[in-house]
Amino acid sequence: MSKPLRLGIAGLGTVGVGVVKIVQKHGTLLAARAGRPIVISAVSARSRDKDRGVDLSDYAWEDDPVALAQRDDVDLFIEVMGGSEGAAKDATEAAIKAGKDVVSANKALLAIHGQPLAAMAEDAGQVIRFEAAVAGGIPVVKSLTEGLAGNEITRVMGVMNGSCNYILTRMEDAGLTYEAVFEEANQLGYLEADPELDVGGIDAGHKLALLAAIAFGTQVDFEAVELEGIGSVTIEDIRQAADMGYKIKLLGVAQLTGRGLEQRMSPCLVPDTSPLGQLQGGTNMVVLEGDAVSQIVLRGPGAGEGPTASAVMGDVMDIARGLRISTFGQPANSLRKARAARAAVSAPYYLRLQLLDKPGALAKIARALGEAGISIDRMRQYQHTQTTAPVLIVTHKTTRTALEEAVAAFATTGVLQGDPVTIRIEAV
Amino acid sequence: MSKPLRLGIAGLGTVGVGVVKIVQKHGTLLAARAGRPIVISAVSARSRDKDRGVDLSDYAWEDDPVALAQRDDVDLFIEVMGGSEGAAKDATEAAIKAGKDVVSANKALLAIHGQPLAAMAEDAGQVIRFEAAVAGGIPVVKSLTEGLAGNEITRVMGVMNGSCNYILTRMEDAGLTYEAVFEEANQLGYLEADPELDVGGIDAGHKLALLAAIAFGTQVDFEAVELEGIGSVTIEDIRQAADMGYKIKLLGVAQLTGRGLEQRMSPCLVPDTSPLGQLQGGTNMVVLEGDAVSQIVLRGPGAGEGPTASAVMGDVMDIARGLRISTFGQPANSLRKARAARAAVSAPYYLRLQLLDKPGALAKIARALGEAGISIDRMRQYQHTQTTAPVLIVTHKTTRTALEEAVAAFATTGVLQGDPVTIRIEAV
Repeated sequence: MSKPLRLGIAGLGTVGVGVVKIVQKHGTLLAARAGRPIVISAVSARSRDKDRGVDLSDYAWEDDPVALAQRDDVDLFIEVMGGSEGAAKDATEAAIKAGKDVVSANKALLAIHGQPLAAMAEDAGQVIRFEAAVAGGIPVVKSLTEGLAGNEITRVMGVMNGSCNYILTRMEDAGLTYEAVFEEANQLGYLEADPELDVGGIDAGHKLALLAAIAFGTQVDFEAVELEGIGSVTIEDIRQAADMGYKIKLLGVAQLTGRGLEQRMSPCLVPDTSPLGQLQGGTNMVVLEGDAVSQIVLRGPGAGEGPTASAVMGDVMDIARGLRISTFGQPANSLRKARAARAAVSAPYYLRLQLLDKPGALAKIARALGEAGISIDRMRQYQHTQTTAPVLIVTHKTTRTALEEAVAAFATTGVLQGDPVTIRIEAV
Repeated sequence: MSKPLRLGIAGLGTVGVGVVKIVQKHGTLLAARAGRPIVISAVSARSRDKDRGVDLSDYAWEDDPVALAQRDDVDLFIEVMGGSEGAAKDATEAAIKAGKDVVSANKALLAIHGQPLAAMAEDAGQVIRFEAAVAGGIPVVKSLTEGLAGNEITRVMGVMNGSCNYILTRMEDAGLTYEAVFEEANQLGYLEADPELDVGGIDAGHKLALLAAIAFGTQVDFEAVELEGIGSVTIEDIRQAADMGYKIKLLGVAQLTGRGLEQRMSPCLVPDTSPLGQLQGGTNMVVLEGDAVSQIVLRGPGAGEGPTASAVMGDVMDIARGLRISTFGQPANSLRKARAARAAVSAPYYLRLQLLDKPGALAKIARALGEAGISIDRMRQYQHTQTTAPVLIVTHKTTRTALEEAVAAFATTGVLQGDPVTIRIEAV
């Protein structure tokens, strides 16, 4: 049997403890599969005294993750601290400089600094792997980078924030407002300390940017992700969408178009019979589309100790088995800087309007759509409640530019109360 | 850039032609990802003259796949001929002896001869990969062997024969008998030349045996798979199961129990709201369960030129990138010979009986169940039609031994017409 692979684990929160547990529990199994023992040399965390429910006494302790990353008895540095700046970044860079491979669960760090980190690692002959950074226990980075390596990837989609999907499905199931379910989720501990990371789509946007870089051979570019959170999704829209055969999901979509790379993380409508439409609660789902494979769908737990530690260990085992692959699937210096395209891909849209009870009101709306070149697939006008009537429109495929033109024209008609709600319908 | 990886492709049917197309179309992309060019040196098939819609003029031709496998200008032998014996086996062995790695789409060959082939390859320092042999374009071998390598696998399940799933969903949608849909599928070319490979569960059983070996570190043992095809599934059972909230699927399940390794490929009921229950038509789905990850579900095309070639190319790219992993995820000589366990895992069962119109008839059935220690979860008796009344029973969890005891006791009651139908309900 070959010499052991010696791990240094920086961060002993949920994920770090999960990794320790797997290494302790499955030593024999891991060694059989990897052809060499997997051992932990040293760990690091903020507080040494905290009881984490695992015995850490066999491992050296470092208060400073940078010192951990530089230890001679560490071959592989596992960064499960989190945060895009500061200690996580310093320690990752220190590990690479000290000749260590890196396994990271840190989506923010890699989505923001992934390109220079990958270049630094490859120059040094080290690898960075990050399965746990995207969609928890689902081996999606592996499936995309390796399993579909013979494909030109055409689209990547995913529901990659379990908290948002929990909120949206709970709103529908219980008939509660966004505010009520948000409060509930927050009290259950389902949301990040800064909930905007979840409900603002930032966390999911980080994941999308990472997948897009692999899929399209482009430099990871989180800044270019169009972000729209779920805070403006109302129970009315959830109900009306259901009536039309759709579910609302916080959906990430990345597509390389003739005009550039489009990356969106926003509430979208998907058919309620599709795998994405049927996804309930905190589960994640990623859809990968390629020219040869057509479409594969991966579903699994997006968070939690076991699933995330499983993903970290997948990377550890790859490195133990000798797989040395570029961070984003091809050398960092060969990744192109993609032009960011916004609204390049046309789609049908869902519109919800509050129509005032005036003669010819609907005609004015229909005319504004027609003049913007938008044709109507389906429309429903409901009964007037006091002064307004809800109108739902599903358009045929159109561009967002045309839609914005129509919405601007709506404002001049004087027949609407409030702003129209517009939600993209993603073909899945 | 490193030296090219030179392929020899044996078999130019759907899959082989698909591989040629990918290599021809995506040369630049593949080289960027692999860090080296992927080129085809030589090909082999039964007929040289057939027009396959691809230009093969740049490649050497071999009539004999064994000669192809031994060529000096071939680094990697791709076996996409099929068949568990004869040319496929000879050529695979020849390739290993000649120091070539092997990528195979041949589930029958590997399910039957996988253990000695893996041992031979590992002794010779060569690798055999077989992603395309299981569930077409879904990277399930990779996900299980590598992505979940940190898990003790607890169960593997899957709908892995698209033709059977097509037949079962078509029966339900169109209200047609098995015989009618079988004929239809056969005429559409959906079935193998020997349809029993599909509808008898043999093809899917090969795939299950391969996954079980990886999952549990055991020697692949297709002979131990309990096989039951879909030929006895009636439209009545599909309808009645739907009424109770279930779908019937040809489901493969592998589980390592205290009594041994249980491998079943048989019609099962699954909840109609589960991902497996919602699977329509020819799509495949595999469910992988591990102690850390809990459950992941992979869905995608199980057959066809593009998807299967995508899987072959995933393996090719792994080898091009330098991944050298044991065929079944750990050295062949470390795989245990598992004891085959039958009916070791208890489950609820669905029973459909034709009850004769006699006093106390239902009581006799209920008593027989009770005496076998089987309790009833739900029961429905429908109206008598002429002389019999259909009775549906869903039991609580029981063993198949107990169920068989009850069914034997039914025969002595004299209140049933014909044999009872019993179908296992798999928890998913």
